[in-house]
Amino acid sequence: MRISELSRRSGVPNATIKYYLREGLLPPGRATAATQAEYDESHLKRLRLIRALTGVRGLSVAACKQVLDTIGDLHSDTHHLLGVVFGIWPSETGRQEPPASGAERPDGARPEADALIKEMGWSISEYNPARGVFDQTVGTLRSLGMDIDWHHFLPYARLAAETARLDMDHIDRFTDPLEKAERAVLMTFLLEPALMALRRLAQEDESITRYGADEHPAGPHPGPGHGTDHE
Amino acid sequence: MRISELSRRSGVPNATIKYYLREGLLPPGRATAATQAEYDESHLKRLRLIRALTGVRGLSVAACKQVLDTIGDLHSDTHHLLGVVFGIWPSETGRQEPPASGAERPDGARPEADALIKEMGWSISEYNPARGVFDQTVGTLRSLGMDIDWHHFLPYARLAAETARLDMDHIDRFTDPLEKAERAVLMTFLLEPALMALRRLAQEDESITRYGADEHPAGPHPGPGHGTDHE
Repeated sequence: MRISELSRRSGVPNATIKYYLREGLLPPGRATAATQAEYDESHLKRLRLIRALTGVRGLSVAACKQVLDTIGDLHSDTHHLLGVVFGIWPSETGRQEPPASGAERPDGARPEADALIKEMGWSISEYNPARGVFDQTVGTLRSLGMDIDWHHFLPYARLAAETARLDMDHIDRFTDPLEKAERAVLMTFLLEPALMALRRLAQEDESITRYGADEHPAGPHPGPGHGTDHE
Repeated sequence: MRISELSRRSGVPNATIKYYLREGLLPPGRATAATQAEYDESHLKRLRLIRALTGVRGLSVAACKQVLDTIGDLHSDTHHLLGVVFGIWPSETGRQEPPASGAERPDGARPEADALIKEMGWSISEYNPARGVFDQTVGTLRSLGMDIDWHHFLPYARLAAETARLDMDHIDRFTDPLEKAERAVLMTFLLEPALMALRRLAQEDESITRYGADEHPAGPHPGPGHGTDHE
């Protein structure tokens, strides 16, 4: 396909595609004339992944190039591929050495995550940034006077494990590493608001189930909160 | 207790407490001298709720006062109380009428949320903002070329229902409406990063379980991603 069709199908402007070509994020097309080239489905897939990495994960073009280069070397290594696109460790360190800079790793500073991970029997890289997020949240809740620690999160962790299996079932459907990587980014980052929205919806339903009965001691009255005004 | 102890125990500065007293967010203490007053546990609980509503939910002082006034009229109505603190409908409309302004309700604009809620058999207010968030996310994923709709989210919705039961179990432990309201705010809003962190941790573990075997065809090598370098 021509660059204009590539632009239309990817939603990425012509000028941006040309910039990616110059920067080496996209390999050159097959030249058909002095100023024309043909692009194929692999360009489209790569472009979609670039869009996900820059637009959704917020990577710079340079960081995006490093991820793409790393992925290129990892065709059959899905676990490492996912580690790179999830940002579990920086792509620039390659697969040979653990990250030194970029991934903060204050030793012993995540006791809550450590304890929960051990109890769950999970295998988690020391560099997964979610460790820090978890300890930070528990710390915030404690600083606000809540008597809470990682034990409180065990039932949530079990539900998270089931959620992760659904996520991976989806990613598993794709065999092309570029597509797999794109889906992994979209499924992880973009699904978050929807999953949190589902929790809030379910909370309202659970609230009605538990407390709805004593809401209207004088009988039902019209108004919000009953979910009946639409059905 | 004196205002200084109230400040120490709530973490809210003296001057801010005096401001809340002037604005009527906190009821006056019991006067013990011309310039002194005694405060009790109910002041502390109310102050903690104010802190959660302003600091965590990001409400203005005026909006916070409306929530507090509404809660004052709803002592035994837990479902409505939760609806107000979760922001399902604006507190200023009271319990008599559905919200007109403030809660956007573009009719028929949330087909994905509507269909999923119906399939789940949930009772959800038309004004729950999570409806819009859900449809927006599905729309974003579709615009990026994903062939996805609400059906995809059904297994996630079932996990969300279990999550909501855990949330409500926690809130249920508190009988004082002020404490219940504070916990509801903290549990809903502040837990989100921790729950998303658990999902990311579980994804890594699931990735190792599924793909870890073909990661190192030449045998294991030290590096990130194995979760063993710390244990």
